[in-house]
Amino acid sequence: MTKYRNFPMVPRVVFGQGCFKQLGEILLPKRKSSEAPFIFLVDDVFEGHELINSIPLLFNDQIIFISADEEPKTNQVDSLVSQLIQSYTELPSGIIGIGGGTLLDLAKATALMLTNPGSASEYQGWDLIKKPAIYHVGIPTISGTGAEVSRTTVLLGPDKKLGINSDFTPFDQVILDPDLTQGVSTEQWFYTGMDCFIHCVESLNGTFLNAFSQSYGEKALELCKEVYLDSLSEEDSRDKLMMASWHGGMSIAYSQVGVAHAMSYGLSYLLGVKHGIGNCLVFQYLEEFYPEGVALFDQMREKHQIKLPKGICANLSDTEFDTMIKVAMSLEPLWENAVGKEWRKTITPQKLKSIYKKI
Amino acid sequence: MTKYRNFPMVPRVVFGQGCFKQLGEILLPKRKSSEAPFIFLVDDVFEGHELINSIPLLFNDQIIFISADEEPKTNQVDSLVSQLIQSYTELPSGIIGIGGGTLLDLAKATALMLTNPGSASEYQGWDLIKKPAIYHVGIPTISGTGAEVSRTTVLLGPDKKLGINSDFTPFDQVILDPDLTQGVSTEQWFYTGMDCFIHCVESLNGTFLNAFSQSYGEKALELCKEVYLDSLSEEDSRDKLMMASWHGGMSIAYSQVGVAHAMSYGLSYLLGVKHGIGNCLVFQYLEEFYPEGVALFDQMREKHQIKLPKGICANLSDTEFDTMIKVAMSLEPLWENAVGKEWRKTITPQKLKSIYKKI
Repeated sequence: MTKYRNFPMVPRVVFGQGCFKQLGEILLPKRKSSEAPFIFLVDDVFEGHELINSIPLLFNDQIIFISADEEPKTNQVDSLVSQLIQSYTELPSGIIGIGGGTLLDLAKATALMLTNPGSASEYQGWDLIKKPAIYHVGIPTISGTGAEVSRTTVLLGPDKKLGINSDFTPFDQVILDPDLTQGVSTEQWFYTGMDCFIHCVESLNGTFLNAFSQSYGEKALELCKEVYLDSLSEEDSRDKLMMASWHGGMSIAYSQVGVAHAMSYGLSYLLGVKHGIGNCLVFQYLEEFYPEGVALFDQMREKHQIKLPKGICANLSDTEFDTMIKVAMSLEPLWENAVGKEWRKTITPQKLKSIYKKI
Repeated sequence: MTKYRNFPMVPRVVFGQGCFKQLGEILLPKRKSSEAPFIFLVDDVFEGHELINSIPLLFNDQIIFISADEEPKTNQVDSLVSQLIQSYTELPSGIIGIGGGTLLDLAKATALMLTNPGSASEYQGWDLIKKPAIYHVGIPTISGTGAEVSRTTVLLGPDKKLGINSDFTPFDQVILDPDLTQGVSTEQWFYTGMDCFIHCVESLNGTFLNAFSQSYGEKALELCKEVYLDSLSEEDSRDKLMMASWHGGMSIAYSQVGVAHAMSYGLSYLLGVKHGIGNCLVFQYLEEFYPEGVALFDQMREKHQIKLPKGICANLSDTEFDTMIKVAMSLEPLWENAVGKEWRKTITPQKLKSIYKKI
C-alpha cells in the first residue's frame, strides 16, 4: 500500500496590499503573558526603515536584526535559542520572521529549537523533530523561496546543508503583503523568483509528481512566466510573484526539487553561495535534464539583462570538487525524483564535476 | 485601511489514490478516550458498499447513514446533535463526513453545534460562531462543491438558505482520495463539477477578486476545462476534478460567488432543488452576466449529453416567485461581488423574475 504524506498546511493566511498592518491584531490573542515576549527576527536591510515603526511592540518584545548576506546556519540558530532562553524567564509567546528565505528559515528553526533539546544540527533530516514548535509567523519581504509555506527550514550545518523537515516546521500564520516586496534590487528579485521557477520545473519534471502537486506547480510556473516574460504593472507583478512563491511551495507537498537544487546545495556548502543565485548558476547548464525550462530561463535572464557571475569554480582543487559532489549526491530523494530509482547509473561524480567546472 | 480576512486553511490534507486507507492511523492520536466515539456521517448510497468495511471502527464509534437526496437542514443538524448528546456520556472525539457537499456540510455543522448552544439556524450568517468545533474530518466522494476546504456550511433553515460562515467551520483534516469518486453517475458528476466551474466563473468575474483568489480560481477553471472538454483517462479525470474542487474552494477566500449561486439559493429554498443542478438551471440563462462562461458551459453540457430539466418554475404563483426573489436578493455580498456596490440599480425583482420564468 502506497503511503501518502498527510501534509501540514499553514492554518492561517492573510493576503493583501498593506495587510502587514494587521499584525498587531493577529498577535494579540496569541500572547501568553506580559513576561512571554514576541521576538521579531528581521532582515537587517530594514534597520531604520519605516517598516520597523509598524512592528507592534509591547512589554518586553524584542526586534533582532539579522543579516541575510549568508545562508542560515545551525550554530546561528543554536545561539539565538540560548540567547532567548537566557534573556527571559518564560518561553517567548512567538517568533516572527520578517524577510526572505534566510529570515523565514531562521524563524522556523528558532521556534522549533526552543522546545526541542540539543543542537539544530541534530534535526537536519526528515521527521526528527518530536515536539511542536512555539507559535511562529512568517512574513516574506521577497518572493520566490516558498519558505513561507513549506515544511522545511534549510540550514548549513557542520557537515551538511539540509532542511529540518517536519510536520511542526510550517508557520502557524503567514502574512502575505505584496507591498513589503517593494525596493528589492532587480538581481535579488530575479534570483529569488528563479528559485520558485526552478522549483516548479524540477517538480513538474520529477518522478514523484501527482495531481495535487502538479496543479500547484503548473499555476506557479504560469505566474512566473507572467511576471518575468509579460508586461505587468509593478503592482500586479508583486502580487503575482507572491502567489507564485506560495503555490510553488505548496507543490512540494507531493514532489521534490531536483538536479539544480542538489548541485546548488553543494555550492552553498563549500563556497557559501546563496541559494537563489546558486540555483541559477547550476540551472543554466542543465538543458540535458530540463530543456524547455532552461530555454525559458534564458529568455527571462535576457529580458531582465541579468549577468550571472562566471568562473566561480575556476580555481577549485579536486578535494573541493569532491566535497561539493559529496554534498550534492547525498541528497538522494532529489536525484530519485529527477532521474528515477536508478539514478546512480547515470549520475556519477565525473558527470557532476563536468557541470560544476562550467560554473 | 482595508481589512483583509485572515483566512483559515485546512491544516492537514492527504491526497492520493487509495489514501482513504490511512484514516485509521490519522484518527488514532485524536481519540480522547474509549468513551468518546468517532461519529461517521456517511452518504447512504454507500450502505453495504465495500467502503464501509474500510471505516476503522473502535469501541463505541458509530456510522450514521444519511440520505443526500435533500439539501442539508438546520433542524437535521439540531436533531443529530441532540441524538449524539443523549447517546454518549462524553462529547465525541470527532465527526467524520464521508460523501458530497451535503454530508460534508452536515459534518461541519454537527461538529460546530456540539460546542455552541442553541439551534444551527441561529448561526446562519457570518462569524456568529464563538467556540471552536470538535475535531472534524472531511472525505469527499464526489468533487466540485469545495465544501472540503471552505469556511462555510450551507444549510436550509426555517427562513433562509445560508451558510454558517466562521473561522471554526473548516475541517481539521481532509482526505482526498480520488478513487472514492468512482461510480458517481454522469449527471451527478456533471452537476457537482459545474458547481466548481460556476464558482470560478463567478469569482473570476467578481469585483471582490484579488491575486490570491484569482490564482486559485484560474487553476480550478483550467482543470474543469481539462476534465470536461479534453479527453483524459478516467483516472486523470478523477484526480484533476478533485483538485479543481479544492482550488475552487480556496478561491473563495477573497472572492465571492455571484448571480447563479444567489438565484440557485432561491430555487433550493422554495423547491428543494439541489445545489449543483440548481446552479446549472440558473447559469444557462446568465449570458448577460457571464458570456464566456455560459458559452463554455454549453460546450461541456453538449459534450456530455446532459439534458437539463425544463419547466421547473412553470406553474409557480406570484407569491412563490416573490419568495425565491426575496431569498436571492437577501444575499447581498453575492450581488455586490457580481455587479458592484450599486447592484440594486440593475438587479430588480422584475429582472430576477424574468430569469426564473425561463427555468
